[in-house]
Amino acid sequence: MSGLTYVAVDWGTSSFRLWLMNANGEVLGERRSDQGMTVAAGTGFASVLQSHLDALGVAADLPVVICGMAGARQGWVETGYVDAPARLSDILTGAVAVRGSARDIRILPGIAQRDAAAPDVMRGEETQLLGALGLDAAIDADVCLPGTHSKWVRVRSGTVERFATFMTGELFGAIARDTILSHAVAGAEDAIDRDAFCSAVAAVFAAPALSANLLFRVRSRQLLFGGSAQSARETISGTLIGAELAAGLAEREAGAPVTLIASGRLRQLYQTALERLSIPFNVIDAEEAVRRGLGHAAASIWRN
Amino acid sequence: MSGLTYVAVDWGTSSFRLWLMNANGEVLGERRSDQGMTVAAGTGFASVLQSHLDALGVAADLPVVICGMAGARQGWVETGYVDAPARLSDILTGAVAVRGSARDIRILPGIAQRDAAAPDVMRGEETQLLGALGLDAAIDADVCLPGTHSKWVRVRSGTVERFATFMTGELFGAIARDTILSHAVAGAEDAIDRDAFCSAVAAVFAAPALSANLLFRVRSRQLLFGGSAQSARETISGTLIGAELAAGLAEREAGAPVTLIASGRLRQLYQTALERLSIPFNVIDAEEAVRRGLGHAAASIWRN
Repeated sequence: MSGLTYVAVDWGTSSFRLWLMNANGEVLGERRSDQGMTVAAGTGFASVLQSHLDALGVAADLPVVICGMAGARQGWVETGYVDAPARLSDILTGAVAVRGSARDIRILPGIAQRDAAAPDVMRGEETQLLGALGLDAAIDADVCLPGTHSKWVRVRSGTVERFATFMTGELFGAIARDTILSHAVAGAEDAIDRDAFCSAVAAVFAAPALSANLLFRVRSRQLLFGGSAQSARETISGTLIGAELAAGLAEREAGAPVTLIASGRLRQLYQTALERLSIPFNVIDAEEAVRRGLGHAAASIWRN
Repeated sequence: MSGLTYVAVDWGTSSFRLWLMNANGEVLGERRSDQGMTVAAGTGFASVLQSHLDALGVAADLPVVICGMAGARQGWVETGYVDAPARLSDILTGAVAVRGSARDIRILPGIAQRDAAAPDVMRGEETQLLGALGLDAAIDADVCLPGTHSKWVRVRSGTVERFATFMTGELFGAIARDTILSHAVAGAEDAIDRDAFCSAVAAVFAAPALSANLLFRVRSRQLLFGGSAQSARETISGTLIGAELAAGLAEREAGAPVTLIASGRLRQLYQTALERLSIPFNVIDAEEAVRRGLGHAAASIWRN
């Protein structure tokens, strides 16, 4: 393998994804597991990484670039934060080397918004932004990155000016697991109930304060009118996503398209919600974005 | 004991409260336990009730009137619902006798809002309303009943016209237990951090769609600026209560006072929030209200 080949890792709270990449941005090999920060903090980050490198037969001198929670205080090596407003290129210069490793391993920093009135942090999404928007110093975008902790980011002239995190995904999980609505959603399948989802999106978008009432109606509707677990789940999902969109879209330039960076089911749900609200948007696959972002980092660190 | 003496029971999902009452509305004896519907459905409703009657030495011929979840489908005897719009006096005529009991035991019905666009149910709160507002056929009120499932009720001419349930209390519990914020609130004490609570109430009242973002800021604030578990807990609480108030108050007659039916810590929190928002209100103790409501029911059933 040549010096142009490298390993890219997206190390989240609950997931680990690794790609063996060549200089053309092509994926030569791939590994996925649930050994996120939470698991790896117990078993050891170095050994988790090495086991996946071994599985792909990666040479000992191949460098590794990592983004995400591996750089958190509870992670492998704390990489701190670049402060917003932050140029996307700033995260490249903030990479921290893992000491005591024979292999060259770098972990990227997050971005912090040190505003006492609206404090916020991201770790991993900055790399998706870099991959999606590139290093174009003139780029403007209003970006939505759905997830456990969804981010809405205002980028102006290649700079992350402001961002806000919404606990949307985590609230969905807690509500579906740990409230009276757990009975309502039991047995729901993976398919999307578009009508229930869109109704909830529209209702909460029109009156975001009603969120906690719209959620309880899921229970009342089942008691008084029946109703499937599927529609219950989609109503909860639509209520939480619709409220997030009401806040996120309020910050956007009027009429400007939203840049949606998402994959899989979340991508489907957010696309459906944006279509329902007649909001223009363009989509970039989140996995593609993080790989491209890690590629920019690798190029900046090892080829300059 | 005379025929004017009776037993009043408020049987909730997770709590059981019993009072031995005389005809003047005076409490002769009292019992409290956590044998709510969830527990009693396992151990048996009749035996739970009898154990508390025995503890107070209540005569075998004394009648018992019950409100709350004992009348639910998963309760003792299903009492159904009176449909809204419902006169408060309607719940008195909907009481159902427990069959096969030597003692005269009646369970009150709930109220249902069979509106497909805004389905809702209450069980127990109708009795608090009856106790707080009485049987005055001319009364108008905009009522807030805080709780696990908070209710906002519009009463016009002694009739429950509309109501809405908010999962405020249950969301607080799920968020504090089952999300990343559980770390932020660990070790919080019972005292109220008025500043943190009021800031959150004002922030979410101004922009209810931001709820899920204001919640995440609790985490970001601790990461970037420190911050106590106490203020974290109160920020979560203020965010959820403030959002509920934004929706509940929007339905009220402009300038009209809110009738707050609450006890203990919830009473403190909602009073503080209403004061912060300069909303006029009057307060009725929730326990006093439910006892008075059960007293109206006893008088109607056994003394007419």
